[in-house]
Amino acid sequence: MLPFLPALALLLAAALPARADTLARIASPGDVLAVTLESQHEGRIAYRVERKGQAVIAPSRLGFLLGDGRLERNVELVGQSSSSFDETWEQPWGERRLTRNHYNELRASFEEKAGAGRDYPRRFDVVFRVYDDGIGFRYEFPRQAAMPQARIRAELTEFTLARPATAWWIPAFEWNREEYLYQRTPLKEIGTAQTPLTLRDDSGLHISIHEAALVDYAGMNLARGDGDVLRAALTPGGDGVAVVRTLPFNTPWRTIQIGEKAADLAESSLILNLNEPNAIGDVSWFTPAKYVGVWWSLHLETETWATGPKHGATTENTKRYIDFAAANGFRGVLVEGWNPGWDGNWFADGGGFDFTRPTADFDLPALARYGAGKGVHLIGHHETACAVSHYERQLPAALALYARNGVDVVKTGYVCDAGDIQRQDEAGGPVRREWHEGQWMSNHHLRVLRQAAARHIAINSHEPIKDTGLRRTYPNWVSREGARGMEFAAWGNPPNPPEHEATLAFTRMLAGPMDFTPGIVSLKGRNGQPLRSTLAKQLALYVVLYSPIQMVADLPEHYAQHPDAFQFIKDVAVDWEESHVLDGEVGEYVTFARKARGSGEWFLGSVGDDHPHALDTPLSFLDPGRRYRAEIYRDGDGANWRDNPFAFARETREVGNGDRITLKLAPGGGAAIRFVPLD
Amino acid sequence: MLPFLPALALLLAAALPARADTLARIASPGDVLAVTLESQHEGRIAYRVERKGQAVIAPSRLGFLLGDGRLERNVELVGQSSSSFDETWEQPWGERRLTRNHYNELRASFEEKAGAGRDYPRRFDVVFRVYDDGIGFRYEFPRQAAMPQARIRAELTEFTLARPATAWWIPAFEWNREEYLYQRTPLKEIGTAQTPLTLRDDSGLHISIHEAALVDYAGMNLARGDGDVLRAALTPGGDGVAVVRTLPFNTPWRTIQIGEKAADLAESSLILNLNEPNAIGDVSWFTPAKYVGVWWSLHLETETWATGPKHGATTENTKRYIDFAAANGFRGVLVEGWNPGWDGNWFADGGGFDFTRPTADFDLPALARYGAGKGVHLIGHHETACAVSHYERQLPAALALYARNGVDVVKTGYVCDAGDIQRQDEAGGPVRREWHEGQWMSNHHLRVLRQAAARHIAINSHEPIKDTGLRRTYPNWVSREGARGMEFAAWGNPPNPPEHEATLAFTRMLAGPMDFTPGIVSLKGRNGQPLRSTLAKQLALYVVLYSPIQMVADLPEHYAQHPDAFQFIKDVAVDWEESHVLDGEVGEYVTFARKARGSGEWFLGSVGDDHPHALDTPLSFLDPGRRYRAEIYRDGDGANWRDNPFAFARETREVGNGDRITLKLAPGGGAAIRFVPLD
Repeated sequence: MLPFLPALALLLAAALPARADTLARIASPGDVLAVTLESQHEGRIAYRVERKGQAVIAPSRLGFLLGDGRLERNVELVGQSSSSFDETWEQPWGERRLTRNHYNELRASFEEKAGAGRDYPRRFDVVFRVYDDGIGFRYEFPRQAAMPQARIRAELTEFTLARPATAWWIPAFEWNREEYLYQRTPLKEIGTAQTPLTLRDDSGLHISIHEAALVDYAGMNLARGDGDVLRAALTPGGDGVAVVRTLPFNTPWRTIQIGEKAADLAESSLILNLNEPNAIGDVSWFTPAKYVGVWWSLHLETETWATGPKHGATTENTKRYIDFAAANGFRGVLVEGWNPGWDGNWFADGGGFDFTRPTADFDLPALARYGAGKGVHLIGHHETACAVSHYERQLPAALALYARNGVDVVKTGYVCDAGDIQRQDEAGGPVRREWHEGQWMSNHHLRVLRQAAARHIAINSHEPIKDTGLRRTYPNWVSREGARGMEFAAWGNPPNPPEHEATLAFTRMLAGPMDFTPGIVSLKGRNGQPLRSTLAKQLALYVVLYSPIQMVADLPEHYAQHPDAFQFIKDVAVDWEESHVLDGEVGEYVTFARKARGSGEWFLGSVGDDHPHALDTPLSFLDPGRRYRAEIYRDGDGANWRDNPFAFARETREVGNGDRITLKLAPGGGAAIRFVPLD
Repeated sequence: MLPFLPALALLLAAALPARADTLARIASPGDVLAVTLESQHEGRIAYRVERKGQAVIAPSRLGFLLGDGRLERNVELVGQSSSSFDETWEQPWGERRLTRNHYNELRASFEEKAGAGRDYPRRFDVVFRVYDDGIGFRYEFPRQAAMPQARIRAELTEFTLARPATAWWIPAFEWNREEYLYQRTPLKEIGTAQTPLTLRDDSGLHISIHEAALVDYAGMNLARGDGDVLRAALTPGGDGVAVVRTLPFNTPWRTIQIGEKAADLAESSLILNLNEPNAIGDVSWFTPAKYVGVWWSLHLETETWATGPKHGATTENTKRYIDFAAANGFRGVLVEGWNPGWDGNWFADGGGFDFTRPTADFDLPALARYGAGKGVHLIGHHETACAVSHYERQLPAALALYARNGVDVVKTGYVCDAGDIQRQDEAGGPVRREWHEGQWMSNHHLRVLRQAAARHIAINSHEPIKDTGLRRTYPNWVSREGARGMEFAAWGNPPNPPEHEATLAFTRMLAGPMDFTPGIVSLKGRNGQPLRSTLAKQLALYVVLYSPIQMVADLPEHYAQHPDAFQFIKDVAVDWEESHVLDGEVGEYVTFARKARGSGEWFLGSVGDDHPHALDTPLSFLDPGRRYRAEIYRDGDGANWRDNPFAFARETREVGNGDRITLKLAPGGGAAIRFVPLD
């Protein structure tokens, strides 16, 4: 049976029509989006979102399931205030230099009604920041006399689409974490999804749901519930509740990007804007750059992480990579397998890794000196195999070792199945298991970041926690994996399909940079398995998939076979003054144009899917009044990934911003252009 | 990146095609169903189910996520055995008296492979019992040296349908627990579902997934995962992991009923057969019976639970119900609001309930004596409002009070939102919150059952844990709610639709009896809201929805207005020698025929949906060679629930088992027949 509130006319929660009272409303600065907060029957609160008067998010509930019961109904508004903010800030590195942060903010203070059967009514605020291209909202729990701590068993935040929609998503809580191909299904066919979750509703609006500033909290997934409701599904704690926080605290921002075009999603700075400003000070010690290294050979199995006759991480082999890097202007050389612990069953027991000394056949100091003489730096590698506490205990010494050997970028790794992170609060003590996206790991990553920052070391996390824009606050968190990257071209079954990157551009990439490691110009993986890609597409990826560190991932001998394509890779910038999405549709094609910082050069990259595309592309992004030499790298006639992937053409043309170009993409194809100012 | 197992050719788990090796196979006694256990790449184990050679369940994984990591891969078969069982056992009360338990059993013993990085390999068995109409399987963890306890964070059991299917389901983890209307959607549109989950695949096979013998474990829901996979989603523990068990222990049976027709699902005894035999001894003290009481008036709001001028639970009012019960041969009178705690906000604070004494205006001993003189017993009521530990502390005294006042059936209640059960291990100590279907509550209910059994008291749980057939082991667990019952006709918005009961028959009712409380012959709820039902349907429900205790739920004055319909209610039996489903389709219509124990009378009940039905029904279930007077209660011409619900006809006919009858059901209609032997 259902409850009766004594003495009140309020009735039964069993789906009385949502007789809602408006509590507050806030619109974006340009009056494009509006958020309305409403009170529903039995004192439940909900928000909804409209775009130019059209419902986008239907009334969606707010609330929590705490250790001391549901915080969901019998809640009343006890105060509200609104404010505006408009500031342009500068990224030390990034896809653009200047970013405008312009929003209107609503703060609504709620309190449980008296008589809810508690000794004290619980209080919390919900803060909405409304931008023209999206919203963010978070809960803030102020210090409260009788609630010193919140034990969050579940967050009840809902995201209910107002209209039927198509969704691009990867499943949550699967053993292989985020390394799944995006599925395109009706919204109704979502089970539980990770974020970013991207949707296109049946009016054509593009929407993406994610979060910003995931600090000391569990990562949020989205479970489809009753009907079309998507509800927050927090990553569990290892041994208990999802989140434990002392008060006061704020949750991460729950974000909803909304735009007419797919391109609008990829151009938004919502996630970064909602993050706190830089907390680590000057990061000019970090240089966005390209890197090569002992990596692809390992995935082709021609070399090994483990010591032995095929050990990739030897002094000799690394010198060859340093030479190759120096000859071609690449700053970094990544070497995997450089440290003890790879012999034996490292996957099952990461406790054998030693991050404080190299293997006997890897002369780290000598290689550091050798590289320094040529302007090349080693890139470090810390594969933890999820023995995370073991790693943290060595971290100070490990970072010190790298710092004194000129290493200022480290790739970290957390290879193990979802839920198998090993946490051991005391050396030799009991081991607890955590999830990659749980609260404990959200804190682990920031501990690593802060220690690395003190050593002027940047971090590139693989098998990471999702990117939620914390690179604004910690600008040494330069990149991460967090999706199916190039390695799946080596051995994935199935390998990444042709439309994979055109899907990533509007899903994974909305979260932040990805160390995708493109540039496999041989177009072959292990045992000759073909990449679902033409040669030109490999070049385009350097522009399409943003990262301040970009790997030139193939073997040097393969680049020697494709000198014309290789030239683009040598020329492409990695740090940008501006970035624009010229056009695109999720999972079909996307074209980016980016202006390099400093040089004034522009770069264009376009990738498609398994169909040919002819994209009429205006060059209006070029600086007005300037002429450029366009160095065009494109699919040749008759190219396609299946049987003619190397058909490739390089052309030069003189252009200005009044010109147009038709980008002809082959099935599995792409196009890459460098625009060099002629004056 | 994905792991490499050193020195082995095994490769990459990233969806290698399921190259499966058969480990074992077991078929049902009649060779109808077969279960095959297979080993997949990287030592994962899976089962699949075929019916007469046709795939029904595709390879579906087994495993756990434990406190010490995943128990899922690198598992090898170390032993197997099979056996058969065939026994017919007798139910002390039920939908049938004799039940045949005939299965073939396979026990497969598994152990983690050496070198999985553990000090010790973990071991477990999976036991399959294969019947002609379904399977059950469970995990058994034997005592193991270095694993004294299992902390189950997730169960990874999968149920992957081999073919597309239609599903009838209610969502899990919603605030209103199981009180949701069943949705009919494609399987692909399931988010997370409760069990029983009923499906019809595109070959026409009917399937239902549930569990049996839920003891000291968390209730299992089904989350749709990657693609069409349904995966176990255990109800969380209040403050931690879903299940904590010391070894050795067994999980509940995971059950999959499979039949050609919907009727096959509703006729199966799979769930009961998988439960342990009666553990509480003689239960002849329990009498299946009908009851009336102070209940419907409360939902109509003409009377109140709380004391005051409209208090329903007064001595005077109860005497009227006792008189009514006695005059009509009903054994029980339920009275809600008889005890202190209903005044004030009981929903928010069940800690005010006192189960050890009545209110001042309810003379319990006098009423007990008054009823005893007329063969009428009061039915107790223990509404906890989820202050469960508070209730348990009073339970001995509460049961003693009832036992000395002739109360031998108690209706219990757990009204609160999902996740708000209040557990307080020490009086005055901290309160933890649990879920209705979590491990702690699975144990709470059995504590209540055992104490009640010692007092010869039967339990009827509302807002319960799901029925998993434990009435076989504890035959004093006589009924429960656990779905949207008749009260939603009083005030539900929306109210139960016409097809509701024809859906319940193939979903909720597969789990066990339901105290639906039918017989609202006034066909009106609060404020005149019409039931989506004709008069005849209210009678049919006594046969369609099985319960050993059936409420005659309307107000006495309403029955006085419908004496002809009331006659069926007085005559219908509540305990059965046999039950058969003559025909039915999920959510469309269903016809039951049941033979009463003792009297030799047969009863037929049929309900439909919002369409008219003409069901050609052979009476071949009647005893051969006997003639019967068929007392037929049916929808009258032109009847329908919307504007002509009282059109009703009563006919008599003489029939034998060679005859047929056409049941004409109106929209929202039904038919009820009593067959009285003429010899």
